[in-house]
Amino acid sequence: MSNTASKVYNFCAGPAQLPETVLQQAQQSIIDWQGTGTSILSIGHRTDAFMQMVAETEQDLRALMQMPDHYRVLFMQGGATSQFSALPLNLLHDKHYAEYIVTGHWGKKAVDLARQYGDIRVVAEGLDAAQNTQWPVSPDAAYVHCTPNETIDGVEFRQIEATHSKLVADLSSSILSQPIRVEDYAMIYAGAQKNIGPAGLCVVLIREDMIGQAAPHTPPLYNYETYAKQAIPNTPPTFAWYVCHLVFQWLKQQGGLSMIAERNTQKAQALYDFIDQSALYSNQVPVSCRSRMNVIFQLARPELEPIFLRDSKALGLVGLAGHRAVGGMRASLYNAMPLEGVQALIQFMQAFEEQYG
Amino acid sequence: MSNTASKVYNFCAGPAQLPETVLQQAQQSIIDWQGTGTSILSIGHRTDAFMQMVAETEQDLRALMQMPDHYRVLFMQGGATSQFSALPLNLLHDKHYAEYIVTGHWGKKAVDLARQYGDIRVVAEGLDAAQNTQWPVSPDAAYVHCTPNETIDGVEFRQIEATHSKLVADLSSSILSQPIRVEDYAMIYAGAQKNIGPAGLCVVLIREDMIGQAAPHTPPLYNYETYAKQAIPNTPPTFAWYVCHLVFQWLKQQGGLSMIAERNTQKAQALYDFIDQSALYSNQVPVSCRSRMNVIFQLARPELEPIFLRDSKALGLVGLAGHRAVGGMRASLYNAMPLEGVQALIQFMQAFEEQYG
Repeated sequence: MSNTASKVYNFCAGPAQLPETVLQQAQQSIIDWQGTGTSILSIGHRTDAFMQMVAETEQDLRALMQMPDHYRVLFMQGGATSQFSALPLNLLHDKHYAEYIVTGHWGKKAVDLARQYGDIRVVAEGLDAAQNTQWPVSPDAAYVHCTPNETIDGVEFRQIEATHSKLVADLSSSILSQPIRVEDYAMIYAGAQKNIGPAGLCVVLIREDMIGQAAPHTPPLYNYETYAKQAIPNTPPTFAWYVCHLVFQWLKQQGGLSMIAERNTQKAQALYDFIDQSALYSNQVPVSCRSRMNVIFQLARPELEPIFLRDSKALGLVGLAGHRAVGGMRASLYNAMPLEGVQALIQFMQAFEEQYG
Repeated sequence: MSNTASKVYNFCAGPAQLPETVLQQAQQSIIDWQGTGTSILSIGHRTDAFMQMVAETEQDLRALMQMPDHYRVLFMQGGATSQFSALPLNLLHDKHYAEYIVTGHWGKKAVDLARQYGDIRVVAEGLDAAQNTQWPVSPDAAYVHCTPNETIDGVEFRQIEATHSKLVADLSSSILSQPIRVEDYAMIYAGAQKNIGPAGLCVVLIREDMIGQAAPHTPPLYNYETYAKQAIPNTPPTFAWYVCHLVFQWLKQQGGLSMIAERNTQKAQALYDFIDQSALYSNQVPVSCRSRMNVIFQLARPELEPIFLRDSKALGLVGLAGHRAVGGMRASLYNAMPLEGVQALIQFMQAFEEQYG
């Protein structure tokens, strides 16, 4: 069961694999950050050095996403689940209702948590809503929420045809994986632990006119206005922030989001092509809305699943079990997964099929 | 200005210095955790290995603090500031009022944030309340809140004479620095970034009868009941949790809280003794409530402050500036600060006084 000889590729859906160079820099900084002789874990969040890093992190993210000036970047604690509550607390107060598009597990969870705070209407649902994005949204909705990539269901839509002036997207699992038009959204949020950095941080991009409408019982650290007024209102997860900084620099070095998108398409296509020609593996998601980030697949003989997981792990291919809600297998191919990792997975799957298929 | 030759001691109030052996273990784990070939940053929070680590972390904390079985340990995101809101959301709903003891900056901030949710009464205040802890609390109060150590003011009380069945303490800056009787409190909370681990995690110890009373508009991730039902309701800050685990192991190796308390007393006493005999430095806090964790001091000639900070930093003694709200100097002497660090500081202060005093 030892895998120390071979390279490990981590297909976990999140906390996900990070780029090797980022890990090397992070490792160095645990003992000595920027030659200060002090660990990054012990750097005060009000120091000039940390504030400088924070400013650069925002600049890099703005440049990578070509973000217009009238959008604010907020670094909040928690992940998407906190935003499921923060969103209606901030945007639904005094309004009649909000509309949700549910194309998978996380979209459904967003609905469940939002209902604590008001009238939440599901206006489009299931694979249909992912294949045809001309959703019947209402201009009177306080906001319209969608989840462009669903990690558990392996479903992604890349084009949005329904427009709404207050469209909100949970981009936790696909942010920075391709260029998008930020202006198409009133707000975008993303837990860091997939394409951004370590768990514990959530990035919120929000158009300025959406800030300042929170319900009176909103906790200050859930209120977008708090962060718009003071970027760091309390002690933030400093290390996670620093690793985001490294990831954004890495993305710039990779050539930005267009280059990353090409690579992501290539990685996912290779795996889907292999699955589609196989007799043992299958993926039931319609081709037009298959996720580039999370490739789910089933084995024709489910009794082989434990053996598949054991043998893949022995080769250093880890984190391939599907989410407990759906079973099967899942390979998450976020930005940091190199093409070589996908090729190694395909090679293993092929050999496994020859042996057991 | 180079200090790479000398050892660096970080007197920052938080995020604070961590033990060297903890940093070395953390550093190793950034590339390879437990020989898995996978970074601790990318370990799934539902994996057996992570869950095992989580269980050990709780066991160690329970043993270190001799925590009774009817107390629950919750690991939440954020720090004390989120608890300033979570506390009244969870404990004040349907009750008439809560009482607060304010002995410094953070106690005051706790009051300000709690007032969003109900009637908050300050029943004792200032240095008097720290020197005489027979506070006039009412049995009808929904809870009584106190801040046993105030980082900015350098004030600490170690004995609490007023008893209340629902006493709540913000122990962010003194938890694990000495043995305490957990049973004296209905709830204890502490942001991790001083004596526990990296920023981004908050430890809550709560008596079971206090759980399950939250206001209906409480966000689930602010509701103690959520964590009592499911220890990890969402993706947690996995790395911070792991470093807490290392710190608790280190504390056990140090001989537990009695040994740590002895060392902390010795460190603080050495510095206060030096300050009290000096003509240049002074500390105005009454001896009975001087903080062992945060030693503040003023220079008789304030114009020397920038030179003091520059020269100390050049020797590798960093983070000595007082909080911007009070000015002056501050040396934070949390558990991870070795006696040698305090001795190096005293040596520098002595030499500085000889040169400029």
